[in-house]
Amino acid sequence: MNFTAPFQSVVWKGDHLIILDQTLLPENESMIRLDSTDQVWEAIKKLRVRGAPAIGIAAAYGFVLGIKTLSDNLTFDRFFAECDRISQYLNSSRPTAVNLSWALKRLNAEVYTHREKTVTELKQLVEETAIAIHNEDRELCRKIGQNGLELIREKSRILTHCNTGGLATGEFGTAFSVILHAHHEDKLERVWVDETRPLLQGARLTAWELQKAEIPFSLQTDSAAAFLMKQGKVDLIITGADRITRNGDTANKIGTYSLAVLAKHHNIPFYVAAPYSTIDMSLESGNEIEIELRDADEVSHFGERRTAPEGTDVWNPAFDVTPGELITAIIIEKGVIRPDYTENLKKLFDN
Amino acid sequence: MNFTAPFQSVVWKGDHLIILDQTLLPENESMIRLDSTDQVWEAIKKLRVRGAPAIGIAAAYGFVLGIKTLSDNLTFDRFFAECDRISQYLNSSRPTAVNLSWALKRLNAEVYTHREKTVTELKQLVEETAIAIHNEDRELCRKIGQNGLELIREKSRILTHCNTGGLATGEFGTAFSVILHAHHEDKLERVWVDETRPLLQGARLTAWELQKAEIPFSLQTDSAAAFLMKQGKVDLIITGADRITRNGDTANKIGTYSLAVLAKHHNIPFYVAAPYSTIDMSLESGNEIEIELRDADEVSHFGERRTAPEGTDVWNPAFDVTPGELITAIIIEKGVIRPDYTENLKKLFDN
Repeated sequence: MNFTAPFQSVVWKGDHLIILDQTLLPENESMIRLDSTDQVWEAIKKLRVRGAPAIGIAAAYGFVLGIKTLSDNLTFDRFFAECDRISQYLNSSRPTAVNLSWALKRLNAEVYTHREKTVTELKQLVEETAIAIHNEDRELCRKIGQNGLELIREKSRILTHCNTGGLATGEFGTAFSVILHAHHEDKLERVWVDETRPLLQGARLTAWELQKAEIPFSLQTDSAAAFLMKQGKVDLIITGADRITRNGDTANKIGTYSLAVLAKHHNIPFYVAAPYSTIDMSLESGNEIEIELRDADEVSHFGERRTAPEGTDVWNPAFDVTPGELITAIIIEKGVIRPDYTENLKKLFDN
Repeated sequence: MNFTAPFQSVVWKGDHLIILDQTLLPENESMIRLDSTDQVWEAIKKLRVRGAPAIGIAAAYGFVLGIKTLSDNLTFDRFFAECDRISQYLNSSRPTAVNLSWALKRLNAEVYTHREKTVTELKQLVEETAIAIHNEDRELCRKIGQNGLELIREKSRILTHCNTGGLATGEFGTAFSVILHAHHEDKLERVWVDETRPLLQGARLTAWELQKAEIPFSLQTDSAAAFLMKQGKVDLIITGADRITRNGDTANKIGTYSLAVLAKHHNIPFYVAAPYSTIDMSLESGNEIEIELRDADEVSHFGERRTAPEGTDVWNPAFDVTPGELITAIIIEKGVIRPDYTENLKKLFDN
């Protein structure tokens, strides 16, 4: 089953890039045109484009825009030095974004590997590689959605957390792709969306994507999810993942662990959907993942307005870690992985 | 152990009332003077004073201010008709607030019972009754705090939800009174405060009260509470209650049920603190409690600013119901009640 996504957040036009400015959502849907590396840098820095895969894709096109302005008469060494400068510059827009540096490294490596080619040919090759990075992400998202379908019964009511859709990826998304595919197979009754404090990605972004896809949904505060489950209104839960360790422990947006515990108590399946590249076999368990603490302001303020007293100490972890034992299955582009994760993830990587 | 509360939210001055304007918290601590029934009506209507017991107390003083302006030469019938008019008017400020109508009915009944007295004497009697309503609430809050102490070990780290403190009551609060008393007995290491979406009573009010009482605390999003428990940083949880049924099922602010399930999973005691009057023996279980659904705007907007797309369907229950089986003990002014609640609440009411 192939269908088109309800929108495109990043569109390459050969000599410029069009992106949906996510900072204006959900009130305004504004597509903006980026003609230069500088404009792409600014768009990433200001979160106009966000979500790890989408950032990597935008940066790749930003790299293409940068080298397009270089003279075709440069020596390889001069050209490669410029490539390096452009990629360091783009990388500085969000230094901790893994997909960003991964995409830029891949483009640089492509250039270096083909250093016998002319600059004109190399420019062409870099553009093709950027498009390939985008298409590969689209394809893996589509496969995650297709693979997830086997887990969804008729008339399912799915609860999700944060934003895992086409806004954050090349197209379709990860957990959101499963939701989209279930909808297109007519298996979806309703989606319950956690607003996802503190940054409200569920309310601002996932709700917007569901509306675009014409999927029936309701929004609730994160702490109301448990009561929905108690009332028998949730058939399954599906979230994305930031990182998955060897034993299936999964780091994801704060609030994910809470949902997994609540799902267990209510006997509801809890699924994680993510690209294969999210699995980090170098880590034995979630205990090895350091918890990133974010700014207090995200919780103590709303925009400029203070909502907690001055001097309030805030505990604001970016993500939590859900033990593999609480995860019913992990959906990746290669298929559906069931427990025992230590065994089954090892098999996957051994093949 | 007796100590004074860190602040007074409602202070009677004999011919006027002073209240802390809660709509300006946490940024501004502004005490405002109310000289008339109209001003008290406005303060309740605009949520300058909030929390069921505090509303009842303010309304009682509003009643006193109203009858003070009446002539001492009225016949009893004319006087009583005015009392009735004043109490109906005050009751219209927040028609669903139970303590509000309860306090006003009590004042009217007091007048009617003593109809042989002069108007001058009745005015005096009403003022004494209003002060008694206030003092009785203070006393029961103090007792709840003292009774809760037996449940608190040394160096406890207590997690709480919503606002249950002196802002909402005559003084000290309910669950918050236990926290205050534990602090004064040097048994408290830290309080973890759920911000309590959607209206942020934890961030805005409980954090402010903790700061006033100089109690060490941290604020977190509601969905982060589970991860705190997983890390072994929570020794016990205590919340208030809106209504408790015969079998111990407890309706309280949305998010309470979620905490109770998470507490069970992590083997953490979960306590409820509330006045005896919260127990409704006419209801067999929580299934008989109708869930109040509140405005979508509370979740889809922040102040005037829209945070979810237009047309978003929102599920915004005011409270949830926690089964008695998940509650380790219920603390009331008469003592600590343990399961089996059906049996032990019956005993309490039979005595």
